[in-house]
Amino acid sequence: MKEDKTHDDGSRTRQSPENKVHENPVQKNYVLEDFVKENKVLMAHGGGGRAARSLIQELISPVFDNPELSRLEDAARIPGIPGNNPRVVMTTDSYVVTPRFFPGGDIGKLSVCGTVNDLVTTGARPAALSVGFILEEGFSLKELEKIIKSMKQTADSVPVALITGDTKVVERGRGDGIYITTAGVGILPEGVFLSPDNIEPGDAVLINGPIGNHEAAIISVRDKFSLGVEVVSDCTPLARLITKITEAVPEVRCARDPTRGGVASILIELVESSGYGITIDEDKLPVDEPVSNLCEVLGMDPLYMANEGKMVVIVPENQTKHCLEVMRSVPAGKRSTVIGSVTKDKPRLVVNTPYGSSRVVTMPKGEQLPRIC
Amino acid sequence: MKEDKTHDDGSRTRQSPENKVHENPVQKNYVLEDFVKENKVLMAHGGGGRAARSLIQELISPVFDNPELSRLEDAARIPGIPGNNPRVVMTTDSYVVTPRFFPGGDIGKLSVCGTVNDLVTTGARPAALSVGFILEEGFSLKELEKIIKSMKQTADSVPVALITGDTKVVERGRGDGIYITTAGVGILPEGVFLSPDNIEPGDAVLINGPIGNHEAAIISVRDKFSLGVEVVSDCTPLARLITKITEAVPEVRCARDPTRGGVASILIELVESSGYGITIDEDKLPVDEPVSNLCEVLGMDPLYMANEGKMVVIVPENQTKHCLEVMRSVPAGKRSTVIGSVTKDKPRLVVNTPYGSSRVVTMPKGEQLPRIC
Repeated sequence: MKEDKTHDDGSRTRQSPENKVHENPVQKNYVLEDFVKENKVLMAHGGGGRAARSLIQELISPVFDNPELSRLEDAARIPGIPGNNPRVVMTTDSYVVTPRFFPGGDIGKLSVCGTVNDLVTTGARPAALSVGFILEEGFSLKELEKIIKSMKQTADSVPVALITGDTKVVERGRGDGIYITTAGVGILPEGVFLSPDNIEPGDAVLINGPIGNHEAAIISVRDKFSLGVEVVSDCTPLARLITKITEAVPEVRCARDPTRGGVASILIELVESSGYGITIDEDKLPVDEPVSNLCEVLGMDPLYMANEGKMVVIVPENQTKHCLEVMRSVPAGKRSTVIGSVTKDKPRLVVNTPYGSSRVVTMPKGEQLPRIC
Repeated sequence: MKEDKTHDDGSRTRQSPENKVHENPVQKNYVLEDFVKENKVLMAHGGGGRAARSLIQELISPVFDNPELSRLEDAARIPGIPGNNPRVVMTTDSYVVTPRFFPGGDIGKLSVCGTVNDLVTTGARPAALSVGFILEEGFSLKELEKIIKSMKQTADSVPVALITGDTKVVERGRGDGIYITTAGVGILPEGVFLSPDNIEPGDAVLINGPIGNHEAAIISVRDKFSLGVEVVSDCTPLARLITKITEAVPEVRCARDPTRGGVASILIELVESSGYGITIDEDKLPVDEPVSNLCEVLGMDPLYMANEGKMVVIVPENQTKHCLEVMRSVPAGKRSTVIGSVTKDKPRLVVNTPYGSSRVVTMPKGEQLPRIC
């Protein structure tokens, strides 16, 4: 299948160390070409990379033509709620992860964590979730029960209420057991709204712990052969982390959860939307040993790997120490650290290597791994 | 496939006229048996009938254990929004209709109408929609563009804003082109909350036009052989209809949109939740000729057929004439009529036939047609 071959080539090349220094020419206009030539949906369109962004920016966003949607943030403010405008935010994500159960979580837990974490990137407090199930005929009801119990347990831990839902069934061969779409509504406390618009040169870039664990966990269960070691997904709701930060560090600029496309993709989105540069130090990026081992074996880059319990937080430089202390006081933030800073340079993501050199990191074309979430 | 055979038998039997008089014994505990014996998802679980309700009431609802969810209404109130509690409502539905394009609509228009209509059953004004796309690898981007343009056009006609979304892609053979899950948030005007709890004996049961058109439209395109006539779906957003009613008839009790399972299913839900009986006159049920012809041919009952632009409205008896005038002043309500009334009888749905006899109508087991919405 042409596009898959291209897709794989693209990703491999992008990820192999020796190719990080410059952008891979093979990828130039890859997506636009496909739009024209193939004009069909590719697996890459579901990734966190350039293909997915073209689909949204060139096809979906222009049609829907809504200012909140066009901001392409993880959550959007709902207009016109009397007395609260615009303090109610909404988000949605569909979850198609395979396998449905993985070390550290399952599609149910993921469907709550992912949507809660999108909500809280704005600083909102989660208020309610809705859930839509698309079940494949013949799917085990026992498995369904396990999954919804996992959703309930995760929602209770936030806490957030699952208040409404829907179930559809499709014929065998028209689905894959279960797909879940959760939508979330959250409330912005008075005066709180985290946004890339707040970013200033000199700001510090923080993250709440090691990166790549979710994607590594999925890989480790999909390709058992690849390594004996089992990696556990970081799949966790981060509502408490963000609440603590917004309460203790009101000057916090913005927060983003680096899921599909990893830390690289969201930092590139932040430089593009803020108009400033961001420089990070590779040796400051926290990566667990099993994850870096797996990356060595497969020639992958943790910077592009999906996380489901991580938050990149940007704060004024003089708040760095204080914010780190606050983040580390929360279980999900124990290993929080500074990874870089916002610069006056042109809007691009620069990574300083341990060898003293530096490279410009570009948006990955597709996703390194399909159906990661 | 055993369950499908049972499913079909069940439905056919349920629908064939000579069996309407009494409940079909074959169906007794059908679902519970399957839960135990097969313990897997059946197409019937996606219907508007008993199987779907068992799945929700026996499996999902007890686990999620949320008072709003347990009310099993079309939309739920969001708790804890400062100044608005509980005036913000939320709903969600997944859409898997096949074919994706049908007379009178497409999966995109349907995904906006269905969710808007669920919102307004509470009396809420639609404020925002979110959309989650699950695309199958290889799906035509041109078709996707047609579908999202249709969503936008329908949303603008409400009007309601599509403010946030997500796109996932699954491999060929793991989906069916496109599945859409929309969630909606709406605002209840001060003092407005339509609910079956408001129903009183003597209330009139109104509907805004002829029934069965959506399901008949889907059948007419799926089985072209069955009849030369093309039926057009009633797929329409009903926000304006409900706004007019709640403004002009503040005493209105409740509203329900009879989608999967048809008018029969929602009236049975209303008798169960209100504790009162409902009696309707079969000859007062508005049915377009092409639809009744199709029902004759296929032995189906319009009372169980899905609608996507209909609203059953319950008002105090003395408001009937006034409410009819208001409903008829809206394009979507031109053919509004009275079909029955709420009684002091035991909570069951009774249908008076044109022949002077009457029958108790029970919940259909599954859906007459899979993937109707």
